[in-house]
Order: sequence, then C-alpha cells, then structure tokens
Amino acid sequence: MENRWATGRTEAFSDGVFAIAITLLVLDIAVPESAFENLPHAILHEWPAYLGYVTSFLTIGGIWLAHHGIFRRLRYANDRVMRINLLLLMAVAFLPYPTRLAAQAIRSADAERAAIVFYGISLLVCATLLGALWGVVARDRSLLAPGVTDAEVNDLLLRTTPSIGFYVGATALGLALPRVAAGVYLAIAVLSIVRARGDRSVAAPAEEPAA
Amino acid sequence: MENRWATGRTEAFSDGVFAIAITLLVLDIAVPESAFENLPHAILHEWPAYLGYVTSFLTIGGIWLAHHGIFRRLRYANDRVMRINLLLLMAVAFLPYPTRLAAQAIRSADAERAAIVFYGISLLVCATLLGALWGVVARDRSLLAPGVTDAEVNDLLLRTTPSIGFYVGATALGLALPRVAAGVYLAIAVLSIVRARGDRSVAAPAEEPAA
Amino acid sequence: MENRWATGRTEAFSDGVFAIAITLLVLDIAVPESAFENLPHAILHEWPAYLGYVTSFLTIGGIWLAHHGIFRRLRYANDRVMRINLLLLMAVAFLPYPTRLAAQAIRSADAERAAIVFYGISLLVCATLLGALWGVVARDRSLLAPGVTDAEVNDLLLRTTPSIGFYVGATALGLALPRVAAGVYLAIAVLSIVRARGDRSVAAPAEEPAA
Amino acid sequence: MENRWATGRTEAFSDGVFAIAITLLVLDIAVPESAFENLPHAILHEWPAYLGYVTSFLTIGGIWLAHHGIFRRLRYANDRVMRINLLLLMAVAFLPYPTRLAAQAIRSADAERAAIVFYGISLLVCATLLGALWGVVARDRSLLAPGVTDAEVNDLLLRTTPSIGFYVGATALGLALPRVAAGVYLAIAVLSIVRARGDRSVAAPAEEPAA
Repeated sequence: MENRWATGRTEAFSDGVFAIAITLLVLDIAVPESAFENLPHAILHEWPAYLGYVTSFLTIGGIWLAHHGIFRRLRYANDRVMRINLLLLMAVAFLPYPTRLAAQAIRSADAERAAIVFYGISLLVCATLLGALWGVVARDRSLLAPGVTDAEVNDLLLRTTPSIGFYVGATALGLALPRVAAGVYLAIAVLSIVRARGDRSVAAPAEEPAA
Repeated sequence: MENRWATGRTEAFSDGVFAIAITLLVLDIAVPESAFENLPHAILHEWPAYLGYVTSFLTIGGIWLAHHGIFRRLRYANDRVMRINLLLLMAVAFLPYPTRLAAQAIRSADAERAAIVFYGISLLVCATLLGALWGVVARDRSLLAPGVTDAEVNDLLLRTTPSIGFYVGATALGLALPRVAAGVYLAIAVLSIVRARGDRSVAAPAEEPAA
Repeated sequence: MENRWATGRTEAFSDGVFAIAITLLVLDIAVPESAFENLPHAILHEWPAYLGYVTSFLTIGGIWLAHHGIFRRLRYANDRVMRINLLLLMAVAFLPYPTRLAAQAIRSADAERAAIVFYGISLLVCATLLGALWGVVARDRSLLAPGVTDAEVNDLLLRTTPSIGFYVGATALGLALPRVAAGVYLAIAVLSIVRARGDRSVAAPAEEPAA
Repeated sequence: MENRWATGRTEAFSDGVFAIAITLLVLDIAVPESAFENLPHAILHEWPAYLGYVTSFLTIGGIWLAHHGIFRRLRYANDRVMRINLLLLMAVAFLPYPTRLAAQAIRSADAERAAIVFYGISLLVCATLLGALWGVVARDRSLLAPGVTDAEVNDLLLRTTPSIGFYVGATALGLALPRVAAGVYLAIAVLSIVRARGDRSVAAPAEEPAA
C-alpha cells in the first residue's frame, strides 16, 4: 500500500509560497531619486519593470489556478507528488530573480537577449514541473478523488501541457527578437488565466437548498 | 451550467497576498546612519514614510474587510470572479511601490505632485476592482449563499462603490494640493474601516447554546 | 443585535501578518563584504542584530501565543474587535523598523538612547493594543465561546496586562541605561512565552477515545 | 491535567514562516549591472547563490515535510511543544542570513571557511530543534493521536535524528574542505526529502468509497 499525504496542509504551504513569490515582485520596482526632476517621465520610463511585474504575476497566478485545479481533484498525495510539488515551488519562488534581470537588461543591447532567454527558461521549468505534477496524477488514478472523470483528467492535461511547447518556442524566439518574446511570455500568461476553468460539479459548501 | 470554484482556497491565497503586501510596507522606512547624530529629529523627520505606511496599511486593511464581507456571502466563485480577484490582488500587491514613491517625493517641489497623483491612481484602481468584484456578484445572485438578502447586497454596494468617486476627487485634488490629497487618502482609508460592518446573521461556530 | 464576524479568516490573515513580520527581521542582518578579511570576528560583531532578531522574534511569538489564546475563546468577533486587531497588526508589522534602528544605533553614543526608547515605545504600543483586544472581549461576555470561565478571562488579563507596565518601566530605564533596557525587553519577551499557557479543556480533534 | 493547544492554528502559522523563509532566499541573488556586458557569463558566475538557494530551499522543504509528519500525528500540543516549535521557527527564519553569507564568501580565500562553518552550525541548530520536537512527543505518548503506532514513532525518530550527526560531521569537514562541506549540506537536504514518507493509514478526505 502506498504512502499518503493529506492535501490540506500542502495546499496551505503552497499558497503561502505562491502568495509571497507573487508579492515580492514589487520590491524590484523603483525610481531613483535622481530622476525626481521629471517624475512623470521617470515613472513611465520604468515600463520594463511593470511589464515584468505583470508577466510574472499573471504567470504565477495561472500556475496557482492550475495547482488549485489539480489539488482539489486529489484524494491524497503520494511521495512523488510531494516531491514534484516542492520542486515546482522552488522554481516559482525563483522567478523574481530572472524577472528583475529581464526588466533591468531589456534596454541594454548587450544583455537583453541573454536576460530574456534566461527568463524564458525559468518560465519553461515552471511549466514543465506543473505538467509533470498533473502527469503523475493522471497516470495513477488511485490518487484522484472518486468523482473525477476521464474527461476532466484530459481537459487538465490539455490546459497544462501546451504551455511547455509555447515556452520552448518563445524562448527560442528570444534569441532573435527578445522584445517580441517578452510580449509572448505575457500573452502565454494571460492565456493560462483565461483558459482556466472552474469545476462543473464543485459542491457548494454547507447548507445549500435545492438551488 | 456554470464553472465553479470553491472559495476556501481562494480566500487563503488572497489573505496571503494581502498580509504580505501590508507587511512589506515597513521595508521602505529607514533612517540613514548619517542622521544618527540627532536621531530623535531624524526619526520624526521620517513622517512621510509613517503617513504612507499608515495610509496603505489601512487601505489594504479596508479592502481585506470588504473582501472578507464579499467572500463569506459567496456560495462559490465563477471564472469571472476568480479573474477579477487576481487583478485586485495584482493591484494591491503593487501598492508598496507608489507608497514608497509618494513618501520619498512629498518633500520635493518637483516630484510631489506627480507622486501623489500616481499614488491616488493606484488606490483608485484597487477601489474600482473591488467594486467590480462585488458588482459581478450582485448581478448574478446564483453565486450568493442562500441566506443573503437584497438589503445586504445593496448595503455592500453602498460601502464599496463610493470610494471610487472619493479617489477620483482626491486624485484630482492632488494636482493642485498634493499634501491635502495625501490627507484625504488617509481619511478615505479610515472611513472604509470604520464603515465596515460584520454580519448580523453570522452563525457562531459549533456548540452555541440558545444565546 | 450586534454585527458579527466569523473568526476563522481573521485568524488566518493575522497569522499571515505575524509570520511575515517575524520573518522579515532577518533581512536586516548583514555582514559587509569589506569585513570578510576576518569573518569570524565580523559575524560576532553583528551581535546587536542578533539580539534585535531574537527579541523581536520572541516578542511577536509571545503576541501570537496570546492572540491564539484570545481568538480560540471567541464565539465571533464584533466590529470593535476587528478594528483593534487591525491596529495590533499594524503595530506588529511596524516592529522590523525600530528593531533595525536599535540594532544599528546601539554602538553609537549619540543615537543609542533614542533608538532604544523608540524601540521600547513600539513594543509598548503592541502590548497596549493586545491588552485592549482582550479587554474589549472581557467586558462583553457575549463574544465568548460558551465554555469559557471567569477564571480563564481573568487569567488572560493577568497575562496580557502586566507587560504594559513592564514596557513603561523598561522604556523609562532606556533613557538612563539603554543597554540594560535592551536586555529587559528580551527578558519580557521570554517571560511572555514562558507564561503562555494552553487550555485545560481544549477538545482534542476528531476521534479521541476515552484517553 | 496538562495544558493543551489545538494544532490547526500552529500549523498555519508555522507554514507561513516556512513559506516566507523559503521564498526570501531569492532576494539575495543578483547580478550587478556592471556585469551586463557579458550577461551569460555573469549569470553562470552566480553559481554559489544558486547552490545556496537550492540547499536552503530543500533543507527547509525537508524540515517542513518532517514538521507535517509530526503535527499530523499530534492529538494536541502542550506548552513545551509550542515553545520548541517557536525556537525551530526562529532558527529556520534565520537561515537566509548564513545562506547569503556562505554564497558571498565561498570565493573568498579568507572568509570561505568561516562562512561555511557558520552555515553548517545554523543547519545543525535547525536539525537539533526538529529532533527535540519529535523527541518531546515520542516521550509523552498522551500527545499522540490514537492510531499512531510505536513503529511510526520510531520511524520518525530514525528520520529526524541522524541529520544531527550528519551536520556535526559536515560542519567539522567544513573546517578543512569548505566546498566539499557545501556539497554535503546539499546532499543531506536531498536525502531528507527523498526519505520523507507519507502515512500508510492517512484517511482520505470525505466521501471515499471502498477504494
């Protein structure tokens, strides 16, 4: 018989890491006091920092939605799920670093390309680990809660897997056209949120009458 | 039938983001070691940082109270509620940046006005997204928990909507009188907390006797 | 009939703020790279930062234990409890700033006294708000869960109130003997943890046999 | 009769501290803008920061897994468990400081040894407090949930105790061969995660059919 972990505390810990990684991103946005002479211009001049903030925020938000979708379908986690989940959290908590680097470097002819590619690889690692998380569950149905259908399992596979390909493509694009790739990263993040779907059969909490 | 999200984990994740955004604000307060010669004066000299801390803390606190009020009335969330909630969290987690900027710039004749207006716009975006969150719920009663009355729905609308107008006015005022506008931002935050109301029908947890 | 707030989400949000405030303290500890020549000495040389870390960590830990003790005895919170709780969180989340200041200034003849007194006042504000929180509950027994006895109410008063006096005394002492006062702050924090007591009647979760 | 603390809120608070300590680690990774000329090289040049990030992340992750394993077997906590838990959290939240120091110093002939030993001692303190936590529980079986067997108790002792010896050895090794010791710290962290085991008898939440 397999080793089991109740999912409640893992969700709470993961939510904490997601929430902090998503919130730390703002620490990297700053206007130097030397630019206060023309502050409106200086605020607009920080656009790469905003782009990085929005992209990483929505990327992590999309991962959180998918994570939510995965864990609410689990009956329990096994050792492998716990380990992949830790690796996923390690990759997500790492994102503020490449985000900051890309925002700083996007105006430097020398550094732009490397920073965007590095950011893309970091996003790709997150997407791959998220896909692996659901892949492990999809292959071992005993982990799933009783009511989960094959259609739901495949649906989630179809929503987590393609991002891997998208990020491979966008990162490759970043070698030639870094700024276009930055836009594609944002587009993938927006898509991952727009495509996230709630559950048709989620039970309403507690005392629901015949609604 | 609509897609549904159970609210528990969304509340936990949102609480995490609120708690972190509210706590990061303190990182922006510092006295330079060069001012240690007359530390009491230097501590008082940081008043704009304290004003920013208190204003943003109470603003986020007020948003949290309203968020609490909204989510405890939900039976479940739909995709749209989840998306608006993510945008609201993105706006709230952004606040430490304009807060810091306003605190730094309030003593600079050049930058004061732009910084206060930028801060006001950021607060306005938060208020608008909070209003949109409840607006979506108010228009789709199937999202509401069974016992929620029309009076409660309108009551919450009356407590979330006016802030939008207040912030428009205060931000416009900031163009002419930045320091007065800073005071108004604080007043709006205090008001949002003083006007927050618990629920008259909240069930006490567990073993309540005939109270 | 009074307005009521369920306590679960307030506890979660408060835990988030406590956890972050307690964890941010470490960001203020650093050894400058210029001191790497004699690193063992440089690490020891940071003792004021460690003292500040331990003092503020245990202080916040003690406040958390008391907060835990208060909220587990509540049937629900009213508007006033929610507001005092927000003020308490605002004071606790502020602590990293005076902590850092005291650690930096303790070796400066000019600044030491002011920094220690400022730190003491910040601790006093936290203790006063914690006392006010329980004071409000103690005066309005309808907020209390059914089984809570008068003995428990007075017991908690006796554990939260004296700190206020201790901090007044220690802060006054800081005017004359700053370093001694710093030691007293630590002693008060240790005491608050040593004196924290669990509940004799807490129900064990779930399936407890006749233990 | 003993004082008791319900475990739910302690788990939530501990998860918050673990999640933040684990996430703050990324703030210490940065590439100076002066290195943008050859960014790919500069990114690789930061390898000590990545090594520190991964080591501390996995160490804290392993502590979290063990903490999870301990608390899910508790019927309730007593005062001593609460105090050791606070000390454990204080040690874990301290880790970002020695991690950063070790990553900065590993390329400095002067500082390398002291930094690695200091890091090892910090890890040792965490391991010792984790062992003490389970040791207290193992000696007082009345704290344990009803179904917990002696085999489980000994199994957890065997998984938490040896790390203490490992860290003593690795730290001593750091006096002679700092870089080798850094690798051993990472190996211990990986081991602690690979050896973490779920529970064979964890009840699946809610409506499990005869699986």
